[in-house]
Amino acid sequence: MDYKYMKKALSLAKLGIGYTNPNPLVGAVIVKDGQIIGQGYHKHYGYDHAEIDAIKNSYSDLKGSTMYVNLEPCSHFGKTPPCVYEIVKKGISKVVIGMVDPNPLVSGNGIKILKENNIEVVVGVLEDEAKKLNEIFIKYITTNIPFCILKTAMTLDGKIASKTGDSKWISNDISRKYVHHLRHKVSAIMVGVNTVILDNPYLTTRLNKRSKNPIRIIVDTYCKTPLDSNVLSDESKTIIATTNLALDENIEKLKQKGAEIIITPAKDDKVDLSFLMKELGKRKIDSILLEGGSTLNYTALNENLVDKVISFVSAKIIGGTLAKTPVGGLGKDYIKDAIELENVTVSMFDNDIMIQAYPKKV
Amino acid sequence: MDYKYMKKALSLAKLGIGYTNPNPLVGAVIVKDGQIIGQGYHKHYGYDHAEIDAIKNSYSDLKGSTMYVNLEPCSHFGKTPPCVYEIVKKGISKVVIGMVDPNPLVSGNGIKILKENNIEVVVGVLEDEAKKLNEIFIKYITTNIPFCILKTAMTLDGKIASKTGDSKWISNDISRKYVHHLRHKVSAIMVGVNTVILDNPYLTTRLNKRSKNPIRIIVDTYCKTPLDSNVLSDESKTIIATTNLALDENIEKLKQKGAEIIITPAKDDKVDLSFLMKELGKRKIDSILLEGGSTLNYTALNENLVDKVISFVSAKIIGGTLAKTPVGGLGKDYIKDAIELENVTVSMFDNDIMIQAYPKKV
Repeated sequence: MDYKYMKKALSLAKLGIGYTNPNPLVGAVIVKDGQIIGQGYHKHYGYDHAEIDAIKNSYSDLKGSTMYVNLEPCSHFGKTPPCVYEIVKKGISKVVIGMVDPNPLVSGNGIKILKENNIEVVVGVLEDEAKKLNEIFIKYITTNIPFCILKTAMTLDGKIASKTGDSKWISNDISRKYVHHLRHKVSAIMVGVNTVILDNPYLTTRLNKRSKNPIRIIVDTYCKTPLDSNVLSDESKTIIATTNLALDENIEKLKQKGAEIIITPAKDDKVDLSFLMKELGKRKIDSILLEGGSTLNYTALNENLVDKVISFVSAKIIGGTLAKTPVGGLGKDYIKDAIELENVTVSMFDNDIMIQAYPKKV
Repeated sequence: MDYKYMKKALSLAKLGIGYTNPNPLVGAVIVKDGQIIGQGYHKHYGYDHAEIDAIKNSYSDLKGSTMYVNLEPCSHFGKTPPCVYEIVKKGISKVVIGMVDPNPLVSGNGIKILKENNIEVVVGVLEDEAKKLNEIFIKYITTNIPFCILKTAMTLDGKIASKTGDSKWISNDISRKYVHHLRHKVSAIMVGVNTVILDNPYLTTRLNKRSKNPIRIIVDTYCKTPLDSNVLSDESKTIIATTNLALDENIEKLKQKGAEIIITPAKDDKVDLSFLMKELGKRKIDSILLEGGSTLNYTALNENLVDKVISFVSAKIIGGTLAKTPVGGLGKDYIKDAIELENVTVSMFDNDIMIQAYPKKV
C-alpha cells in the first residue's frame, strides 16, 4: 500500500515540472481508512508546499490519517510556514516519506519534529524514484551550482550535422518534441554563439500555452551575438556570458537589447565555464540544458560540469570525415581516460533512440 | 499450439547457427496426440535437413502426426533427397510451415507436392520470426550476393577511436563477446588493410572450441598486407581483395603465404566492392561481417551493399575533433540524403547499447 500511495505522490509531484524551480518537485497524498481524503502538489515556486496543498484539498477530518510525501516535510520558515507544524496540528498520525531533504537547512529536522510529536515516520519508500525525480534540486541545493544536462542529437554514425553543416533534421518529430519538454523542465538553456550565428534559433519552448521558456544563455567570448538574433527576442530573458576580450562597445549594445551580461575571466581565451556556472547558481538557475556545439560540449564535460547526458541517436547514416560529432575539442588521447557514464537507460521514439546516462563523478 | 511448436522449431533451427551456411537454418518438430514425438534440425551444411533429422529422431509411428518446420520442406534433389517425399512416405498428415522457401528452385513446390498428397498445409505461422532467422539465406539465395552486416563500435560521442588511434576498448567484455558470436555466425569477415596494419588482428572467433572461424577478407587495393600479419595465420582461410594497381610481386608473395587473391577492377583507385561481393557470392560466401574502418564502411554503405547495421554504443565520451567516426569518406551533403535505416531494435549489454537496424532498400 505504501508503494501505491507514494507512486501517486510522485505522479502529483511531476505536475509541477518546469514551474517550481529552484524548489523541489513534491506531491502529497493523505489516506484514512484506505481512502484518499486529500492530495496536492507544489504547483509553482512561491505557492503552497505539497503538504499544505493536500491538507487544504482534504475533505475529511485528518485525525489519524497517513500522509505520503516524496520529500521530507520542511521545518523552516521560508516563503511559506513550515509544513511539519501544520501536519502536527491536523492530527495526522503517520508520515511516509520518499527521501530525506538534501537541503542542509532542513535535512532530518522535519522528521525529528514529527517524531517528537508522536507521529510515526517511515522514510525511504520509493527512495530511488524520489531521488531521480529531484535530481536537479539535490544537485543545486547542495552545491549552489546548476544541474547541467547535456543534450545531443546524432546520426547512427555519430554526426551532429553533415559536412556542409546541415542538421535539419537529424532527430524525428517525437524526439524534437521531447527536447521542448526538456526546455520546459529546466531554468535555462545554454548554447555557444556559433549556434546563434549559424542557426539563429529562438531557444524557446514550443509545447503548449502553459509551457515555460527557459532563460537563454549564450556563451560568447567576444560578444559576437548579432543584435538582430532571435535569442534577443522578448519571449524570455537572455544572458550573454562573455569575457574581457569582448569590446565594451559590443557589450553595451547587447545590454541595450535587454540582455544581461556576465563577464567571466578568459580561460584559454574562452569563457570560464566553471566560473559561469557559479554565477548562474547565484541567480537561482538550478538547471541548464546544454545544447552546445562540439567544442562547448567538450569543455563542459572536461571541466566536470555535466551531470547528465541525454543523447538522441537517429536511424540515419550521413558519413563524412569532415562532419562534426557531438563532442569535439582537443579530446582524450586514450580510451582509458574517457569520461565514463553510468546508470544508462534507453528509450525509443519511433526509430530514434534516446540514451540517458550520468557521468561518473571523479 | 501452432505457435508453441513453431517456437520450438525456431529454437532448434538456431542450434545450427554458424554451421549450415550457405544453407538455411531449419528446425522441425513432430507432434502427435499433443506429444512431441520427434524433433531435429539442420546441423551442418551437407548433413540431413531438419525434417529428415526429426523423422530419424522420432520414437513413434508418424502416421497422423503434424510436423512444424520454419521453412517450406524442399522438393528438389540437392545434397540430400527431397524432404517432401519422406514426409509423404511416413504418413504425416499435416505440415505447419513458418515461411515459403525463398529459393526460386523450390519456392511453393514443396507445398504443392504435400497438398497433392492430401497433406494439410498451414503456411505463415510466426512468419516474421522465420524470415528474420533466415535473413542471410533469403538475401543470398535470391541474389547470390552475400548478406552484409556492418558492425561498428563507438563511444556515446560517435568515436571509433581516440584522436591518437586508441580503441582498446570502446566496448565492454559482453559486447566484444557478442561480436565473436557474430563472427561465428557468418561465412566471412571483412576489414580494410589499414586495420590489418594498425591492429594486426587475427579476426578469428574466440568463443569456445566448437566456434567456427569465418573466412578473412582483406580489402587491400595495393596488396600492402604485411607478410607476417596475423590474418595470414593458418586458423582460417584468407582472401585478399586487390586491384591491378597492386604489384604482381606483392600479389605473388601473398599467394605463397596461402591467401587467395581476388583482383577487382579499380574503382576510384580502390577495390570495386560491388564487383567483389559478386565474386564472394560465387564462392558460396552467403554472409559477411564488415568490421571496416570509416572509409571502407562508407563505401559499402554508399554502394548499397550493407543489409544490416549492428552498432555498439558505449557509455564513454572521448571527445576530439580529429577522432574517427564509424562512417567517414566523402559523406552526404544534406541530411535529407542520409542513408535511412528501419526496423530498429535496441539491446543492452551492461552499460553498452547495441542498436540493430536495416538500411532501407532504394
